[in-house]
Amino acid sequence: MKRISSFFLPLVMLAFSHFSLANTALDPLPSWNNTDIKKQIVEYVSTVTQEGNEHFIPVSDRIATFDNDGTLWGEKPVYFQIYFAIDQIKAQAKNHPEWKTEEPFASAIKGDIEGISKSGMEGIAKLILTSHSGMTTQEFEATVKEWIKTARHPVTKRPFNKMIYQPMVELLSYLQDNNFKTYIVSAGGVEFMRAWAPEAYNIPKEQIFGSSLKTEYKIVDGKPVIMRLPEIGVNNDKAQKPSTIQTYIGKKPVIAGGNSDGDLEMLQWTKSSSHPTLAILVHHTDDKREWAYDKDSSVGHLEKAMILAEKDKWNVVDMKKDWNQIFPK
Amino acid sequence: MKRISSFFLPLVMLAFSHFSLANTALDPLPSWNNTDIKKQIVEYVSTVTQEGNEHFIPVSDRIATFDNDGTLWGEKPVYFQIYFAIDQIKAQAKNHPEWKTEEPFASAIKGDIEGISKSGMEGIAKLILTSHSGMTTQEFEATVKEWIKTARHPVTKRPFNKMIYQPMVELLSYLQDNNFKTYIVSAGGVEFMRAWAPEAYNIPKEQIFGSSLKTEYKIVDGKPVIMRLPEIGVNNDKAQKPSTIQTYIGKKPVIAGGNSDGDLEMLQWTKSSSHPTLAILVHHTDDKREWAYDKDSSVGHLEKAMILAEKDKWNVVDMKKDWNQIFPK
Repeated sequence: MKRISSFFLPLVMLAFSHFSLANTALDPLPSWNNTDIKKQIVEYVSTVTQEGNEHFIPVSDRIATFDNDGTLWGEKPVYFQIYFAIDQIKAQAKNHPEWKTEEPFASAIKGDIEGISKSGMEGIAKLILTSHSGMTTQEFEATVKEWIKTARHPVTKRPFNKMIYQPMVELLSYLQDNNFKTYIVSAGGVEFMRAWAPEAYNIPKEQIFGSSLKTEYKIVDGKPVIMRLPEIGVNNDKAQKPSTIQTYIGKKPVIAGGNSDGDLEMLQWTKSSSHPTLAILVHHTDDKREWAYDKDSSVGHLEKAMILAEKDKWNVVDMKKDWNQIFPK
Repeated sequence: MKRISSFFLPLVMLAFSHFSLANTALDPLPSWNNTDIKKQIVEYVSTVTQEGNEHFIPVSDRIATFDNDGTLWGEKPVYFQIYFAIDQIKAQAKNHPEWKTEEPFASAIKGDIEGISKSGMEGIAKLILTSHSGMTTQEFEATVKEWIKTARHPVTKRPFNKMIYQPMVELLSYLQDNNFKTYIVSAGGVEFMRAWAPEAYNIPKEQIFGSSLKTEYKIVDGKPVIMRLPEIGVNNDKAQKPSTIQTYIGKKPVIAGGNSDGDLEMLQWTKSSSHPTLAILVHHTDDKREWAYDKDSSVGHLEKAMILAEKDKWNVVDMKKDWNQIFPK
């Protein structure tokens, strides 16, 4: 018997791998349970991509925009970009002895998130501006690329780019396969995301938009560079998101995904399309596998958008119920 | 003899049309004469798209950015968008009796370009802001679409979208066929261009960037709209062009095309790529078929960029010598 099964093992494996392939081909969203939301998504995509269907959307109008923090990857206990800012401040601290007694730098050097929070939005902005400016765009990209390789999330101990949501990665891939142009429209820093997100989500840099600093083009040592200035250019949150979509893309999306009140206007704008739409709102309900939060959280605050979602029948994802996997294996 | 040639005429025509097709297949740039610049372009594209070649550029890095006014379409006697502004002012004049005695409106109503010029850049800005704001983005697009159908150029009497440069349309198409992503990065208004340029150049809205007004997202009669405000958001000229490319695309182009000092920084930035580059500078030298101008013209002023072009060996187009056709037939 043993000899026979050994003999047949490669064939059995082949059969299994075939089965698995066939299964994936049948189910483009394996990390989604067979609940309503998955049916809504699959039915939507099948309908609007079917030529001759009265709801058919031409390829040029298949624009899908997604928030990043809390929608495509985690955002707890605080936005991951803040950990990057803290690590940069720590690295620069030896050149800034005055930071030892100056907030929010003193707290940042100690890695004391609560201390940073006490300095409020102004303190956080100071931290971000200080750590994200004063270098060229090229130098900044190299710094983020290096950081994402080594930094670990304080709770899960995972690399931050392994805290992307597997079901959303599958959704992006499913949409891309159906000729949707997928974009990120985030309040996070555009250059921060472009350093790692293209690989994580299979979205090219030119389809990633976010908040930005003012920049200055100049010639340094005979070579042109773009310097990052310590001043906010665009704060890409709330009502700015539809304006950014209009300026950068010039088309109204037919699909949008978000998770907080910061995404309300983007989802509302998308719902006003003359085409059929999907307005996907990710609700963080899983305190075992991830975090559970909405209206009582300042990070990813979700209150008004949830009310509108119920009223206007958006497509709400209940992470605990609808996803059988959160992060990639 | 006569009977015989009549009999053979369809066959002769067929043979000719075949020849013509074959010729186009061999020559992607039929409106370009066989001068140096054409050879440079074809050699560049053949080299960088050849897998295994040491100068090969991966598809994801094949970014090509072009100015619009004076590079892809005409700009004389003044930028065409100014004719649009004048026509809008004329149409709105009956609701503004005060404009009859107020410059630059009084001149605009009379169609007096010289009168408008006397009010300087400030006057022109006033004209643009007044005629381009106070409506939704959707309404503005509809207005431009209507205008481009009926408006005619004062000298050539052509529709403005038939004053695009046929050789540049062929170049765009040639680059697109070779998997370059072609963008417009213009100082012209982004929403003005998006209303007609996608059809004229086969470039989708999301690859067209320009100057923009500030906008405001709001709900009017229960529906979300984006209002155009009478305030400049981005003035997309000179050193702003590389910054816009960085923010909107996030990649350094390998090909750029321009025609004036307003494009200097974009071409310089492109030349600094680690890949082989083409920096195409269109020089207006044909006062018979188009216009001849450079350093003495305020529209499309070309002086510093020409000096740099010679020094750094950019690819300069001499319209008179290098193009056998200017506008589409």
